[in-house]
Amino acid sequence: MTDTLPLATETCCTPLRAAVDATEAQRLARIFKALGDPTRVMLLSTVATSPDGEACVCDLTAPVGLSQPTVSHHLKILVDAGLLTRSQRGRWSYYALLPGAIDHLTGDLRALV
Amino acid sequence: MTDTLPLATETCCTPLRAAVDATEAQRLARIFKALGDPTRVMLLSTVATSPDGEACVCDLTAPVGLSQPTVSHHLKILVDAGLLTRSQRGRWSYYALLPGAIDHLTGDLRALV
Repeated sequence: MTDTLPLATETCCTPLRAAVDATEAQRLARIFKALGDPTRVMLLSTVATSPDGEACVCDLTAPVGLSQPTVSHHLKILVDAGLLTRSQRGRWSYYALLPGAIDHLTGDLRALV
Repeated sequence: MTDTLPLATETCCTPLRAAVDATEAQRLARIFKALGDPTRVMLLSTVATSPDGEACVCDLTAPVGLSQPTVSHHLKILVDAGLLTRSQRGRWSYYALLPGAIDHLTGDLRALV
């Protein structure tokens, strides 16, 4: 029966491996998860395309039709994911797209495949 | 008091709007949510970079260290999101990257901002 061993070796393929390790997969999944909500997609887009390049949280409630605490919660997730920056000026928080964030993310997506 | 009206009009900014509508935001969020899990990021990458361009579910359990039912569940989410294709051959399902899926997604990301 031992003569089947060489055949088994020949037909064995190279084990499949991901092009990313677990740490990188976790990092990317966190960013994608932040974008995995329609409200956050709209907020990111609204901030990024605002005429001044930044938007006050006070102007971000109307476009998505949600309360300010809810909008602030969604914005925090986008900031924590490294997609937006937040700066406090007086009473209000202002949000802007982190420079290079989308370039990095599209590059990371391409590197996956 | 009516003389304050023109001033109010001048200082009013154009209301902010997202560069995507709600339907498009929902479509994109569904794809991002599918990628918002480290196991699915690794599965997508493993399938996409497999030597044959497709991978049997039977070869995808080892790279992520999970049971076949769990792996099949994750793969179904990636298929439903339009990232992978699935074909049944005999006993096994084979998965491949949907051609153009990553190009479309990176394009959609850029269009957001």
